[in-house]
Amino acid sequence: MNQVDYPAPVKQLILQLKRLPGIGPKSAERITVWLLQDRGDSMMTAIAKSLTTAEQEIGECETCGFFSTNEGCGICDRSGRDESVLCVVEQATDILPLEKSGAFRGYYHSLRGRISPLENVSPSDLRIDCLIKRLKSGAFAEVILALSSDVEGEATANYLVDLMAPLGVKISRLAQGLPAGGGLESADELTLFRALEGRRTM
Amino acid sequence: MNQVDYPAPVKQLILQLKRLPGIGPKSAERITVWLLQDRGDSMMTAIAKSLTTAEQEIGECETCGFFSTNEGCGICDRSGRDESVLCVVEQATDILPLEKSGAFRGYYHSLRGRISPLENVSPSDLRIDCLIKRLKSGAFAEVILALSSDVEGEATANYLVDLMAPLGVKISRLAQGLPAGGGLESADELTLFRALEGRRTM
Repeated sequence: MNQVDYPAPVKQLILQLKRLPGIGPKSAERITVWLLQDRGDSMMTAIAKSLTTAEQEIGECETCGFFSTNEGCGICDRSGRDESVLCVVEQATDILPLEKSGAFRGYYHSLRGRISPLENVSPSDLRIDCLIKRLKSGAFAEVILALSSDVEGEATANYLVDLMAPLGVKISRLAQGLPAGGGLESADELTLFRALEGRRTM
Repeated sequence: MNQVDYPAPVKQLILQLKRLPGIGPKSAERITVWLLQDRGDSMMTAIAKSLTTAEQEIGECETCGFFSTNEGCGICDRSGRDESVLCVVEQATDILPLEKSGAFRGYYHSLRGRISPLENVSPSDLRIDCLIKRLKSGAFAEVILALSSDVEGEATANYLVDLMAPLGVKISRLAQGLPAGGGLESADELTLFRALEGRRTM
């Protein structure tokens, strides 16, 4: 006798949810069952609608690479920002954390990744051409490289520095050192090395 | 100056995903961003479609309470099952684990919950009336109570036993004791008490 199983639409939903990052088979099943049992307020329709709306309305800003809507980009189209500084990040999602820090009010440029031979990402896969074009045509006096402080981030930073040197723009990068609230005992050697190297006179 | 934030459709999607069980604000944001950045195969449409299909096609079997489709119930409509035994469970989701154990091939009845004064669940909120109707009209010789071994499960079992006593059907419940693979050192006192109480001659 065949074993009893969930009906096909239930199995299909579990399968789809399982593809999401951080959702395993057990979570996918739990969410599916929860949705099916607890649907007084038509949760499923609401989520489906949000997904469809996001898919249809959200694009990538051609200038900075942040999420944009039909109404444009919430950063590039906003007046009152500092037009002399451009902050280069790896991902569009790196923008909001920087914005929330409150220490930067210039413009952004997301590379949509970083140079990584291991993951088959070469400079031509990134939004580097349009970065150079932007720097050539814009009034930016400084470019801040806000890239990860790991091997790929360093490689990308070095590549960009070589490329931007002839443009005569000031290039800086984020400071490296102890994270806020981090004690010395929890810092690794490389972090300590860089914190010492970058020490500031008080 | 207003702070930059995600566009409305992105925030809306994060909000919807955050309502799911086990998904916190961080996970919801991560999944949303992942969906928006990685959409070569239109994941979002696929998930939205699965949700809509499940919402439209999946119902509750009026007889047993398991998930049913337009084509009926995968358990009640299946021939070749043991018509003399009925297994009572709390939730429709308890059915598949029992089925997978391979130790039961009768019919099921989901109560859609259990008696819990703390959560305002009284017997009239459960599928108890139709259980009694089913027992009166059916040919069931035995009812197995496969309820949780906690206070609410016990209360529900006791309530059902009182109710079913006049029907002259044999009533049994799942054994309690050590879980498979569980050592004595990881068992709590109550489990050990019940395991001793229910010891079997070898």
